Amino acid sequence: MKRIIKNATIFTQNENRDMIEKGYLITQDENIIEIGPMDQYKEIPMDAEIIEGDNYLITPGFINAHTHVTMTLLRGYADDLPLWTWLSEKMWPQEDKLTNEDAYWGSLLSIIEMIKSGTTTFNDMYMFMDKTAQAVKESGIRACLSRGLQGPDDKSLKRLEENKLLYRQWHNEAQGRIKIMAGPHAVYTCEPSYWEELLNMVQEFNMGIHTHLSETRMEVENCQKAYGKSPVQHMLDMGVFQHPVVAAHGVHLTDVDIEILKNNPVSIVYNPGSNLKLGSGLAPIPKLLDKGVNIALGTDGAASNNNLDLLEEIRLAALLHKGFMEDSTVITAQQALDMATIGGSKALSWKEIGSLEVGKRADLTMLSMKESTFYPKFNLMSHLVYSSHSSQVENVMVNGNWILRNKELTMIDEEKVIFHIEKIKNKFQ
Amino acid sequence: MKRIIKNATIFTQNENRDMIEKGYLITQDENIIEIGPMDQYKEIPMDAEIIEGDNYLITPGFINAHTHVTMTLLRGYADDLPLWTWLSEKMWPQEDKLTNEDAYWGSLLSIIEMIKSGTTTFNDMYMFMDKTAQAVKESGIRACLSRGLQGPDDKSLKRLEENKLLYRQWHNEAQGRIKIMAGPHAVYTCEPSYWEELLNMVQEFNMGIHTHLSETRMEVENCQKAYGKSPVQHMLDMGVFQHPVVAAHGVHLTDVDIEILKNNPVSIVYNPGSNLKLGSGLAPIPKLLDKGVNIALGTDGAASNNNLDLLEEIRLAALLHKGFMEDSTVITAQQALDMATIGGSKALSWKEIGSLEVGKRADLTMLSMKESTFYPKFNLMSHLVYSSHSSQVENVMVNGNWILRNKELTMIDEEKVIFHIEKIKNKFQ
Repeated sequence: MKRIIKNATIFTQNENRDMIEKGYLITQDENIIEIGPMDQYKEIPMDAEIIEGDNYLITPGFINAHTHVTMTLLRGYADDLPLWTWLSEKMWPQEDKLTNEDAYWGSLLSIIEMIKSGTTTFNDMYMFMDKTAQAVKESGIRACLSRGLQGPDDKSLKRLEENKLLYRQWHNEAQGRIKIMAGPHAVYTCEPSYWEELLNMVQEFNMGIHTHLSETRMEVENCQKAYGKSPVQHMLDMGVFQHPVVAAHGVHLTDVDIEILKNNPVSIVYNPGSNLKLGSGLAPIPKLLDKGVNIALGTDGAASNNNLDLLEEIRLAALLHKGFMEDSTVITAQQALDMATIGGSKALSWKEIGSLEVGKRADLTMLSMKESTFYPKFNLMSHLVYSSHSSQVENVMVNGNWILRNKELTMIDEEKVIFHIEKIKNKFQ
Repeated sequence: MKRIIKNATIFTQNENRDMIEKGYLITQDENIIEIGPMDQYKEIPMDAEIIEGDNYLITPGFINAHTHVTMTLLRGYADDLPLWTWLSEKMWPQEDKLTNEDAYWGSLLSIIEMIKSGTTTFNDMYMFMDKTAQAVKESGIRACLSRGLQGPDDKSLKRLEENKLLYRQWHNEAQGRIKIMAGPHAVYTCEPSYWEELLNMVQEFNMGIHTHLSETRMEVENCQKAYGKSPVQHMLDMGVFQHPVVAAHGVHLTDVDIEILKNNPVSIVYNPGSNLKLGSGLAPIPKLLDKGVNIALGTDGAASNNNLDLLEEIRLAALLHKGFMEDSTVITAQQALDMATIGGSKALSWKEIGSLEVGKRADLTMLSMKESTFYPKFNLMSHLVYSSHSSQVENVMVNGNWILRNKELTMIDEEKVIFHIEKIKNKFQ
């Protein structure tokens, strides 16, 4: 199946960050096979869907590099609490009540919100990941999934087995839309002996690692007390960084930590909304960027954000450091968009996504530029980052298929999902 | 004309901040004449419009307490620059090219965006205010307008005359939807002799004052150099605070400044988005709230924000201090909503708006709660502040009239406005 989008404005996010003001893009099956300015477009006879892209902005589909999609079931359940209280007193007791079935509907609820706000790939860590994988398969979205690992305790080996099974059953499945990583939760929930065990699995399967790193001041202080070093140094010493690591948060980092990150295959996922809401702090993103550390962008779970709108995180990324460093030139609109696209691709070692180029997967987001927020049309990058709303997202394509078309989900029955969510809610009362 | 909204969830924002989970509200002409829970609703025979409010959230219409609506004409024209460079090198030279006619269309462009995101009142300071007043009158929105004043220079007396004329022609006009204030720009653009003159006008007309205050570190330092005191102390000494003052920004305030504000009829308009984007800093809102200083919320002009979505500012207000004070309990969702409603009402000394109570003006915003972002429905205040999008705004009423109905503007021809905006844009190339 071929699809041709004509006359659109395209942010390619290629190496030169080329913006094509009036361009076309052709997809065949799951790939982009042509992209360029309209004056190079040659009408060729072929059986293709033609999409008029005039007054639309096309970006690579957004990559939400840190989520816990099932936790949307607990959106608004507890607000305005510190991370540890929120996690240990509110989230964990409620999580015990969750079933496989709940996770399936919770995942779909999150996927609905992500698709509608232009996200085409997410990177998730949680329990019941088989059900999340099922939801990914059915909804047409792309995801990197990992079983959350904590230990040692009486279930920690079972968790490892589940992570392995997840890999065997789902890695590269759903037309290649699913990848599996290892999901060690953090240094404060995994002891060194357990890291050793899980790193064996990582080695055996040649997996990437998705973890939390230096999210709060307390995490860093406790790590210092327990091991006499920072979480970054501790992970380095345990050999964690001998594998590609997607490290969520990185809020409390020393200059020495940043030097270590720079010299190892570690990407930091910046989660500005969640870090603000939980009172965790502000990650030193300009410093990390200066050193050349790759930065991706995430929403974290909706229980701590409380939404999964990556466009909102892009805006926060571009705004926060300007205010807090009192320097309006720091983190440009372009850099913020990079985090949500090509930065996510690098973080997940998923080179086929994150930019619109020939040979890459056809994952893209089309935003209407007809809204008043896009006028006057001085600077479209500025408008996308500072003025637009995710409600301008009208069409979303993953792997060459429309998963949102004219604002309608093509693969998910939203009413049915909401019906089940309301039923599940009752168990948390 | 009577209108009855039934079965809606209502955030009254009354003194007790009552939330009515399943309530009704009746308007007659421009006023609210009944409000309560459905079980108190008595069907009475009357010729009224009936609106089904099931799965809708009703809030008082938002009050955007600091704007420059004509400046939306320069949205995206210059980004990522410090305030002074942005103002003196980018904005002012372009502003010279603006005409009365441009201001009319620019005002309408802003009003479109504000209405669609649930704002029913705005507080504006700029030039060409007669045209902004015209746009307010035609669009059905409510506004407090002031002529921007700077001086002394060869035009400063003319500006004062314009402010007076604006008052005579427009104060309490458009069915009472327009009020006029004085608009001295700031201590760094008005010299003491000019303050003296304009305060005479304020005294004569018994006007309120809309000004900028302690927006940047540079403003405060320059004021110290010029007058040996802070802008707050300087205004106090000049007698500015003998009148009700709406002071935008208040980013750089000392404890002494805050004590002065507390003891005078001054409201601070918090503009989190603009203060971040221009690198101005973060206003000490929790401290101001602790002292009992009234806080309103604003977007500032779209040239420095770059949008006029007050719901986005509500979210920023609830999030920013949590992150930057590393305290997730600071500024609650309720407090953030207060700033955008009842705080705005107090700031503008416009007691008929800002809450939904019998006898007040019928200014309200209806948001659909059918979006996935509102599930599960644990905490609607949390969802409104942390999860919702302004695209959920479906109906907006001002003075008892629908100015947005089923997402359609009832009083403005949006296409015509966009047509003119595109024409005006060409002069800034």
